[in-house]
Amino acid sequence: MPCRSVTKLMCLGNHVASLTFLRGSPLLPIHTSSCNFSTKPKYGFKPEKVAVVTKTTRYEFEQQRYRYAGLSEEDLKQLLAMKGSSYSGLLERHNIHTSNVEHVVKSLQKEGIEVKVVKRGEYDTEVVQWADAIISAGGDGTMLLVASKVLSKDKPVVGVNTDPERSEGHLCLPVKYTRKFPEALGKLCRGEFRWQWRQRIRLHLEGTGINPTPLDLHEQQLSLEQHSQAHRITTMDHQQKTGTLNESFSNSSLLPVRSLNEIFIGESLSSRASYYEISVDDGPWEKQKSSGLSICTGTGSKAWSYNINKLAEQAVNEILKIGKCQTGLAIPLNLEFIEKITDEYNESLVFSPEDRHLFFSIREPIVNRVFSSSRQRGFASKVCVRSRCWDACMVVDGGSSFEFNDGAIATISMSDDDQLRTVVLHN
Amino acid sequence: MPCRSVTKLMCLGNHVASLTFLRGSPLLPIHTSSCNFSTKPKYGFKPEKVAVVTKTTRYEFEQQRYRYAGLSEEDLKQLLAMKGSSYSGLLERHNIHTSNVEHVVKSLQKEGIEVKVVKRGEYDTEVVQWADAIISAGGDGTMLLVASKVLSKDKPVVGVNTDPERSEGHLCLPVKYTRKFPEALGKLCRGEFRWQWRQRIRLHLEGTGINPTPLDLHEQQLSLEQHSQAHRITTMDHQQKTGTLNESFSNSSLLPVRSLNEIFIGESLSSRASYYEISVDDGPWEKQKSSGLSICTGTGSKAWSYNINKLAEQAVNEILKIGKCQTGLAIPLNLEFIEKITDEYNESLVFSPEDRHLFFSIREPIVNRVFSSSRQRGFASKVCVRSRCWDACMVVDGGSSFEFNDGAIATISMSDDDQLRTVVLHN
Repeated sequence: MPCRSVTKLMCLGNHVASLTFLRGSPLLPIHTSSCNFSTKPKYGFKPEKVAVVTKTTRYEFEQQRYRYAGLSEEDLKQLLAMKGSSYSGLLERHNIHTSNVEHVVKSLQKEGIEVKVVKRGEYDTEVVQWADAIISAGGDGTMLLVASKVLSKDKPVVGVNTDPERSEGHLCLPVKYTRKFPEALGKLCRGEFRWQWRQRIRLHLEGTGINPTPLDLHEQQLSLEQHSQAHRITTMDHQQKTGTLNESFSNSSLLPVRSLNEIFIGESLSSRASYYEISVDDGPWEKQKSSGLSICTGTGSKAWSYNINKLAEQAVNEILKIGKCQTGLAIPLNLEFIEKITDEYNESLVFSPEDRHLFFSIREPIVNRVFSSSRQRGFASKVCVRSRCWDACMVVDGGSSFEFNDGAIATISMSDDDQLRTVVLHN
Repeated sequence: MPCRSVTKLMCLGNHVASLTFLRGSPLLPIHTSSCNFSTKPKYGFKPEKVAVVTKTTRYEFEQQRYRYAGLSEEDLKQLLAMKGSSYSGLLERHNIHTSNVEHVVKSLQKEGIEVKVVKRGEYDTEVVQWADAIISAGGDGTMLLVASKVLSKDKPVVGVNTDPERSEGHLCLPVKYTRKFPEALGKLCRGEFRWQWRQRIRLHLEGTGINPTPLDLHEQQLSLEQHSQAHRITTMDHQQKTGTLNESFSNSSLLPVRSLNEIFIGESLSSRASYYEISVDDGPWEKQKSSGLSICTGTGSKAWSYNINKLAEQAVNEILKIGKCQTGLAIPLNLEFIEKITDEYNESLVFSPEDRHLFFSIREPIVNRVFSSSRQRGFASKVCVRSRCWDACMVVDGGSSFEFNDGAIATISMSDDDQLRTVVLHN
């Protein structure tokens, strides 16, 4: 009889226990305290002032990059062609984006809403304070940036996917509203939506050599060199302000960021192994060596964490084949069945954005005489990590980077106060 | 009936085929042309001149690091303590290493062999040319460094693990010889060994913005900043020498390195996604987005590639559980069985160092409307990669790094000429 439940795994030491969820219901572990925030709006939502934050298109990016080198538009075309890229393709995507932004802006203005259009580089807390609501006009990356500066759980953030053909837009409104934005506005006005509060992660940092000033990675131009250089500059600034040596021990400070997707901890250089110690839910400390650590929210369980943990059909096929061989049982190995098992496995990695749990995953754990890994992944309420790294970082939503070197201790947790208010429109 | 074969998977498009090997025999795919090099020595091997290349211990490393800051030994002790490290522990490991190096050197000199002890920073092609054989005195990292400068297939390289308690030493002689090196020397003299030729990878680079001068990552002090800065300097040097702009198209050049473990291709910044195009065995080009690409040898199939592809018991348990649920069959789920399946799966990832095949693996492939991944991993004779990256590198054995930015094309292949000559002592 086909199984109706989706199982999620929690490893406890060498024993394996599981939490079972009914297929089809929101993936809430049984023991989560229920959310106290009402999801039904009392009235419709009609903001007076809306900030529209726009992404930088690849075309604009390449233009800026080569303008500094004094190249003409024609030079740019040839250069891109030589690299195998298409100038006209980039321009087309740029025009699609700007036209979709115009559509959103006009739709808002038609309703008598005051609109401020802000490029991502100009977006700051002043804009957040001014606006009653903020619209992200771009893809998921832009949405993460917009959310990163909203620390209050009262300010609604709405994402519009301005290039549905190229962008996944998991965090954005369904793509049908991109060219029919008045429909979305209408539903907001009439209360035909529900609020969705997405849980986020908060970070405390303490120990030696820490610097609570993050580096903004959103400026994609940053090479490795600039990344570390900038880390060093913010560290020196911090030292000047506080009068402390980089090596002094600092007490725990709550960082001024909240993570909507995930925190990644590891060496900045992708080819270098990361060394650290980890304690889950105040459990025993474990020394680990790996390619880094990801700690995600329910929202983020569809993002990087998903890619770290998902399995390819190739791997599932091999496991079932070995299982079949070892047991002699008639385990099917046709493509359809393999796809089914693979999909069910991968789906079990995703959980609700409203779930107040962290999900940690160790990338490529190295297990030998010195380093252990009792659990490669699992749920937690709190994760503590002590860096034993040389030149590592703590990256928030792929956008802000904190130095996290030898001796620094991070405490990763969640609080209802940090939730992000988003909307889910009725169908 | 328990299965006696170990299956290895090769994916061909959407179909899955497999190559079967007998358990216990060397893992050679049936179609590999047999190695023409004799493994039996005609006589014993007694070199006249041996270079002993030593690793830098963590203790030496920390000393150098803080000596520049003008700290005393006492300061160093306190600083390490504050970070949770142990000064006496580091000193102990340092003494164990130096004592083991002395033992090897004395054993060689007792046999009338001329010995040159060389720190890793001083090791160069002159040393390689001078020596009849080279001994690596350290761990696997030191062995990789030693091998990296040996381009001839005639010069024997032998690894001695100078800290067996802390170092895995996969590439070194069995640990029993560390304090009984005369035994190893005796076997070499009497011909009680066989030659093992380990296949290595060669690299061709062409396209725009390439620089065939590698950056040496072995100097662990390198932070990200220094890494990119150094890349830039070697690029400028190269431009001065060749009189070319960084953006000009260069023809294919064979790089002066050979990889013993693997090539890693991806963005230098660990938190940034890598974009590239890949063609396997002259097949169709595929656009991919992932956390990078690993291409390894048989030797390297136990190293980083193994960690990328191995599965945790947690994951295997989950798959079998879903399979059981879906089929209703009596698939065992006890720990012993799960361990068995997991071990068999993970063992199938390892293949012979003598196998003239590459094994490629895509880390965390991102599959969506734009990016595909027909095979997450597989064997090949040749892999071509075109960079679409912003600030990426091609890292050889975690030790040398080549710039690999937008427009550059790498061709990765193998040749018998590149084999590394090592020894396997008789029991």
